[in-house]
Amino acid sequence: MVLQAAARLSKLWVPNGGIAATAAEDGHSKLIRAGFLRQSHSGIFHLLPLGRRVQDKVEGVVSRHMEESLSASRVSLSSISTEALWEKSGRLHNVASELFRFSDRKDVAYLLSPTHEEEITALVARTVKSYKELPLRLYQITRKYRDEFRPRHGLLRGREFTMKDLYTFDKSLDSATETYHSVRTAYSKIFSELKLPVLAAKASSGDMGGDLSHEYHLPMSLGEDQVVSCSECDYAINEEIAKVRVREEATPGAQLGIWRGISKDGSTLVNVWYPRSAWQPGSADEIRDYADKDINISAVRSIVPDLVVGVEDIQSLWSAALGSETRTANRLLNIVDGRLPLSLSDDIVGESGMSARPEGLNSPEPPLAVSVHAGGGQDFEPLNLLRVRDGDRCSQCSSGILNVRRAMELGHTFLLGTRYSEPLNAKITIPPSTSGIPMQMGCYGIGISRIIGAVAEHLADRRGLNWPIAIAPYSCVIVPGRERDEGDALEVYRTVIGDLGTMEGQFDAIIDDRRATLPWKLTDADLIGFPLIVVLGREWRTGKRVEVQCRPLRIREAVTISDLPQFIRHLYTQLCDI
Amino acid sequence: MVLQAAARLSKLWVPNGGIAATAAEDGHSKLIRAGFLRQSHSGIFHLLPLGRRVQDKVEGVVSRHMEESLSASRVSLSSISTEALWEKSGRLHNVASELFRFSDRKDVAYLLSPTHEEEITALVARTVKSYKELPLRLYQITRKYRDEFRPRHGLLRGREFTMKDLYTFDKSLDSATETYHSVRTAYSKIFSELKLPVLAAKASSGDMGGDLSHEYHLPMSLGEDQVVSCSECDYAINEEIAKVRVREEATPGAQLGIWRGISKDGSTLVNVWYPRSAWQPGSADEIRDYADKDINISAVRSIVPDLVVGVEDIQSLWSAALGSETRTANRLLNIVDGRLPLSLSDDIVGESGMSARPEGLNSPEPPLAVSVHAGGGQDFEPLNLLRVRDGDRCSQCSSGILNVRRAMELGHTFLLGTRYSEPLNAKITIPPSTSGIPMQMGCYGIGISRIIGAVAEHLADRRGLNWPIAIAPYSCVIVPGRERDEGDALEVYRTVIGDLGTMEGQFDAIIDDRRATLPWKLTDADLIGFPLIVVLGREWRTGKRVEVQCRPLRIREAVTISDLPQFIRHLYTQLCDI
Repeated sequence: MVLQAAARLSKLWVPNGGIAATAAEDGHSKLIRAGFLRQSHSGIFHLLPLGRRVQDKVEGVVSRHMEESLSASRVSLSSISTEALWEKSGRLHNVASELFRFSDRKDVAYLLSPTHEEEITALVARTVKSYKELPLRLYQITRKYRDEFRPRHGLLRGREFTMKDLYTFDKSLDSATETYHSVRTAYSKIFSELKLPVLAAKASSGDMGGDLSHEYHLPMSLGEDQVVSCSECDYAINEEIAKVRVREEATPGAQLGIWRGISKDGSTLVNVWYPRSAWQPGSADEIRDYADKDINISAVRSIVPDLVVGVEDIQSLWSAALGSETRTANRLLNIVDGRLPLSLSDDIVGESGMSARPEGLNSPEPPLAVSVHAGGGQDFEPLNLLRVRDGDRCSQCSSGILNVRRAMELGHTFLLGTRYSEPLNAKITIPPSTSGIPMQMGCYGIGISRIIGAVAEHLADRRGLNWPIAIAPYSCVIVPGRERDEGDALEVYRTVIGDLGTMEGQFDAIIDDRRATLPWKLTDADLIGFPLIVVLGREWRTGKRVEVQCRPLRIREAVTISDLPQFIRHLYTQLCDI
Repeated sequence: MVLQAAARLSKLWVPNGGIAATAAEDGHSKLIRAGFLRQSHSGIFHLLPLGRRVQDKVEGVVSRHMEESLSASRVSLSSISTEALWEKSGRLHNVASELFRFSDRKDVAYLLSPTHEEEITALVARTVKSYKELPLRLYQITRKYRDEFRPRHGLLRGREFTMKDLYTFDKSLDSATETYHSVRTAYSKIFSELKLPVLAAKASSGDMGGDLSHEYHLPMSLGEDQVVSCSECDYAINEEIAKVRVREEATPGAQLGIWRGISKDGSTLVNVWYPRSAWQPGSADEIRDYADKDINISAVRSIVPDLVVGVEDIQSLWSAALGSETRTANRLLNIVDGRLPLSLSDDIVGESGMSARPEGLNSPEPPLAVSVHAGGGQDFEPLNLLRVRDGDRCSQCSSGILNVRRAMELGHTFLLGTRYSEPLNAKITIPPSTSGIPMQMGCYGIGISRIIGAVAEHLADRRGLNWPIAIAPYSCVIVPGRERDEGDALEVYRTVIGDLGTMEGQFDAIIDDRRATLPWKLTDADLIGFPLIVVLGREWRTGKRVEVQCRPLRIREAVTISDLPQFIRHLYTQLCDI
């Protein structure tokens, strides 16, 4: 670092003219205005030099933890995969609408990988044969592709994005579970180094398969998930699968609500029974009102996976499914929320069952098979069919209050088990047995470009972006007040870099030698969001003192050149530790 | 580096079992056998940890020169572009067969970029308006895509590959030409640091457009180009456009040869006239024989761009073009090689013109317009229509002999002029004028993955790969002879890294702590191709001396631990300077 020429802003392409700030500017607009990136096509971006530096640093932080905390080896898999391979894993048709697909000149069907479980499992399957080669931990940081229905918020939901993906292969479920917990620990360290107050929430495994899964959520209003967390215990969970504590006694006088649904093939009609009002557990005062809009669709889908969603006129779907000519329905499923008394289940089948048809629909001949679902599991856990609200009671502890927040998913961990190793034949033999057993896998993502967007959104203030020291494009900018101070600025640069540049390997600085006024440069430095700003202003000319500004720590202080290295080092340490 | 844990081969995924060496193994097979990469699909590769490290280092060398020698700023453009943009530049249909193309869910037509002239010009066009923002030098290192008709030789001709591409924008042709020469100087430094004896050959600009162009060729038998270079002067050029010195006097008694061609639309019939034998200039003894197979198709295409190529039965194409029903021909073009006397041109038109139809073809009615092309340019430069051969005389100096070699193109520089800035409207204003003038561009590629393949092919020997120190996966491997020597190996590691790791920032080492015998490890170290090997073998146990092996310098020497840092430093310096 010391041997290299000084970095100069005049030599770096930072286009930042011609775009005006807007009143309610989001992080993405600031990234564009400050010259970090530009959109090239819908949901597709070019990173400009400042943006690329930030991405490089985020990759560096994540990489370091992959290698030092997890001894993972870095690979670089092709961005291209084949439909044939994705057929084999059985995932092609589930995700087809989100894939960019194409054929080559020989009509082989390819796709741009949104994730690499198939490719890495196939690679490991043909390379690793013995349990002695496990555990294996492989990660990469590459571009991924997803044809989003509605790309938005810049890097937060793009169609081309950079992800870190780690894949682990173990010989037993126990060892894979240990791996899973090691990765969770590494993830905590990563997000803490990035100064992101991320919530690790239990999650559903969705299309990925597998049994154990966590999402790493940064609470923010632009987020597209809802995350529930408890005020008292460490319960944190995606709202889709969140459970609240429900009052076990009946809520007197509560009216019954019925939300209606239907399966995609029209064979199953669904009634979801819920109370129009219910007491909060442990409180005689708080009564909550509920309506159809409060139904937690994900909870209903966990019972009826092929539920039709997003249809307004459900009655006409029922009519069609029951019509004598078009009849498809053969079953009426009643699902009962846990807030209702268990005895109601019997009532529903016994008496009100068939009366729970919407008005105007006659009973079909032959009649439907009627069944009731009111909970499951070993201890008959009551169903939570209503969406969690702020202030609901925690199901995991006695006193906690749940908090529901919008959040953006920045990472995800999955214990996959044999979901991919089984169909793709990634097997090992463990003597004395000679037959192969499938490896136990895990997969672990971190959205690199999404982190950039999230930090821009989460940490920016009215003056501009505000990078954590670990991923700032440069740790420090040195701003000479006049052109004739540039020689001095270089001296300051050398002093600072000479001291910190070698020691940490992660500290860097740049001189703003552009032809512009000092106020313009300072406004731009705030917009770009350098953690440290060293100004050679009036005090430099009169008393050889620089002004050091540090917005994250709210510090602005005049310092002599001899005190500067120690002062900067002190701030730098604080910035790393905040 | 010092603070990091020691690197250990047991922790790095280096799958190298189960693949046997073959007798005539090429570099690509060695890369696979030594665990650097694996093919996933035809012409598409996964880089394994060793391969990725090498690529990372190649990128580092190239990047450093881009930034330090050229003050270029690094960007990262999307891999996706649109057909609409490529229509605008007029290049879509020329290269369509080599593009991977696809549509998104809204039926917008995209492509995977093989190169980024269109995207970067569009980006700069909407961002830069003033000449004061120029010169601008932007580079990136990203994956590129080309649907090769016949992918082969691993990384040497893949369908997904990593390239460094630099784009420059200047306000005048003079300044763009200066930029061009600066880049050429930087390229020389890069290839010299990579220890690749690359030949900078003049080249044709092909589809890229522009006026000045050089290819950077590594002579090797797997190469797909032919490069011509002079024994005396610095003339180096792609064989397609090479010129030889031809004897200006007639070669007595030489029979006339005629090679026939036709334009794609059938309108132009082509006769290429050449001597069946010719004297070498300056020699009365050396007579060369020529036949149709010696015609330099590229030279003919420079006169008839839409020449049909690769057709065996040209006579039937002529018959069709002259047939009374199917007639398309209206012109007969005679092209005369410079080895034939100039007076022959008149003879051809005057007398033998129409007799130069293949046998059995009658004269059409109305007759064809007959013309003769026998050279061009200001001084009526004679045409070179015959392929250059080893031993031909140089056209640029008085005494040089030309050498023709197969070579692999590793880089390319183009002075583009306004080829892209004009159609994509990348314009600046230079006061006092208020009208925009197109920027003067250059584009400059280096094949990063191809360099890896070329080094593997070019520098490997019978024992294995043989990396230049600048891009070796690790500079040095430390091999303990027995498991119980691993503690000592760690001490050796710390000694070596403590000394060299900090100073150069580019020296690194790894301990081979795998469970294997010493001979196996040494064979594998040779196969992987570490430049330096430090062995804790028998001499360690008896006299605390390590054996240092350096295959590139043919050194094998026993050294005490106290002498080791200086000895390694000495070898390292030599390896950097070779």
